[in-house]
Amino acid sequence: MSGNKRYNAVVGQSGGPTAVINQSLVGIIEAVKQHDDKINRLLGARFGTRGIIEENFVDLTDLEFPFLERIAQTPCAALGSTRDKPDEQYCKRIFKVFEKNDVHYFFYIGGNDSADTARIVAEMAQQEGYDLRVFHIPKTIDNDLRVTDHCPGYGSAARFVAAAVMGDGLDNASLPGIKIDVIMGRNAGWLAASTILAKKDESDAPHLIYVPESPLTKEQFINDVSETYNKYGRCLVCVSEGIVDENGQPWSKKISTQMERDAHGNIQLAGSGALGDYLAQLVRTEIAEKRGEKLRVRADTFGYLQRSFPGYASLVDQAEARLAGKTGVEYACSDDYQTGSVAFRRTGNGDNYAIECFRAELQDVAKETKPLPAEYINEKGNGITEEFREYVSPLVGELPAIAKLP
Amino acid sequence: MSGNKRYNAVVGQSGGPTAVINQSLVGIIEAVKQHDDKINRLLGARFGTRGIIEENFVDLTDLEFPFLERIAQTPCAALGSTRDKPDEQYCKRIFKVFEKNDVHYFFYIGGNDSADTARIVAEMAQQEGYDLRVFHIPKTIDNDLRVTDHCPGYGSAARFVAAAVMGDGLDNASLPGIKIDVIMGRNAGWLAASTILAKKDESDAPHLIYVPESPLTKEQFINDVSETYNKYGRCLVCVSEGIVDENGQPWSKKISTQMERDAHGNIQLAGSGALGDYLAQLVRTEIAEKRGEKLRVRADTFGYLQRSFPGYASLVDQAEARLAGKTGVEYACSDDYQTGSVAFRRTGNGDNYAIECFRAELQDVAKETKPLPAEYINEKGNGITEEFREYVSPLVGELPAIAKLP
Repeated sequence: MSGNKRYNAVVGQSGGPTAVINQSLVGIIEAVKQHDDKINRLLGARFGTRGIIEENFVDLTDLEFPFLERIAQTPCAALGSTRDKPDEQYCKRIFKVFEKNDVHYFFYIGGNDSADTARIVAEMAQQEGYDLRVFHIPKTIDNDLRVTDHCPGYGSAARFVAAAVMGDGLDNASLPGIKIDVIMGRNAGWLAASTILAKKDESDAPHLIYVPESPLTKEQFINDVSETYNKYGRCLVCVSEGIVDENGQPWSKKISTQMERDAHGNIQLAGSGALGDYLAQLVRTEIAEKRGEKLRVRADTFGYLQRSFPGYASLVDQAEARLAGKTGVEYACSDDYQTGSVAFRRTGNGDNYAIECFRAELQDVAKETKPLPAEYINEKGNGITEEFREYVSPLVGELPAIAKLP
Repeated sequence: MSGNKRYNAVVGQSGGPTAVINQSLVGIIEAVKQHDDKINRLLGARFGTRGIIEENFVDLTDLEFPFLERIAQTPCAALGSTRDKPDEQYCKRIFKVFEKNDVHYFFYIGGNDSADTARIVAEMAQQEGYDLRVFHIPKTIDNDLRVTDHCPGYGSAARFVAAAVMGDGLDNASLPGIKIDVIMGRNAGWLAASTILAKKDESDAPHLIYVPESPLTKEQFINDVSETYNKYGRCLVCVSEGIVDENGQPWSKKISTQMERDAHGNIQLAGSGALGDYLAQLVRTEIAEKRGEKLRVRADTFGYLQRSFPGYASLVDQAEARLAGKTGVEYACSDDYQTGSVAFRRTGNGDNYAIECFRAELQDVAKETKPLPAEYINEKGNGITEEFREYVSPLVGELPAIAKLP
């Protein structure tokens, strides 16, 4: 961009909240202060792209420590978020607002859809010969962005679900029975897989983990639960909400159809708890009744707590989310790049865990997602490998220490 | 009891787990060490009264720091718990095992049912002229024991749900819509009421709180949600799982009946998520459809995490649970009392919060429970008063600090 002139920047947050999405926001705010030779005002768009087209901005330039630190520690999108998926027309409106407000830097914190929005806006600017630096800052509890080793937001959500399953496993040991925990993840099993961290000893929960990447038949589910119950006198199962059957059809869709057909009243039966309730009922009818045993069978669906619970974020995830925001600004101000997505490369593991940032192309991160690789799923398709534990441990950090009586 | 002879003691844990039930256990173990002139061995009964009649004991006498501290920090019943509700016959078997094992002290950590078990066993011993000291150590996340100001286990569960609703409120502000959170509490609203702590500003969640002590009609629910949505453009509702209608009938029962009638398949429709899903559907049909608006409507049922989540207990609750266990042993060894339940009396509030222990009679704690008093429920029956906030704040302690952009 031309010599000494300073331009404005816009930052937005998009998609489902995470515990650290505001760390990235604060990383951007702080880095912009360091680059005030290039960036004039930093405008926060309220509710993502919607805030841009409505010119609903909050000026973030002059926010200071310690208020900024409190914002960083606050879960969910401080600017507000959006589920809007802008098409070309919508992107054109975004671009017009940028032109009008002398905005030449755009930082968008979000998942694969946000990367695609960033890509379209960047292309539009290029076509028009308008100098716009566009950087996508990764964010998703699903950990399903391509290119990067892992995504900010994932480690904290993984920490929450691993701790929750650890506690629930102790609950299940206190009052033995069969327990089903439904974990977020419509398309990818990264989050459900992280519950492996709750397991220290062979007999610890989770006893079974099912992810969307490995099809699950009704028969296998019943057999696996039955076998585990025979062995330990209890069984805790973690399933991704997106598990699919042998035809690749999501279980949740099947249940939904079946339930809507069955219902005559005003009750929507495919609600948040439907998959867990359905699996629990399978256990009751196919295991408990057939054995003639009275079994404790319960299901919980962890819900929004996985992405929004406060005061429990992973320290590594917090630091990396901050770094991702800061790095996006550095790339944008470096004159080396016009666009990109901030990605992580792992440079050390275990006790020597470390990452470095690199720039990914927007189109390599946009749209499609990354499934949990097959090497992380055990042969039977009902558990997670030790390799995955090594992958995920440093992202989650310490879990509460627990002890068992002899 | 006779002069220098030392007798054995049994401790058991009963009912639903809490985050601090092992603090009470460790309080007992530590206090027994201090009274080794009176107590010989301390036997832990595995899975409550069931462990007694099966003589399934673990000797706890020689466990030491720091292992004991790790046990204390571990949520859920380290000894295992039980839902058995002993009748006279069952209590007779307990008593026989005590006689056989030279057990003259019995400590039972649990709720109102456990207090009743303790009462029956104590009466039996008295009838037989067998010197048995029986002390009940209170424990329940429901906070519904009579006599005591509050119950160990409650403060930590309240801390979890208040934090969860705080995070979920931020989620709801990020992606505005209508959100329903179902909180544990079949008969009493103490736990749902504690979500008031998530609310700092007028516009913060929870916007509506419903408890079983205040009947709720379908019409009021729809009107309340509608009004809140008009005002804030979003609405987060907390309901106890035990809310009742104008005839005192639990909503969950109504839904259950209705759903069973509607269903023909193998799906049990009154599962864990049913109440939340039903309320969400009411909002969709009675508010969104009637307005012709597309609203985000979601429901979460917090489930077992409320009682078992690790590493998030209230510090006050931890200390008080420990104290309750210790005090039970002191009462038993004092020669002043034969039986009792440890109760708390509040001697200071706010920044000067303090309690003292006193002995309650077993029959005053057994069986019946204590509802949330009317003075803690607002006039409309859709919220909680500031008096309750004063009551509950010291039990919960600090919640994570959050901040909002201007």
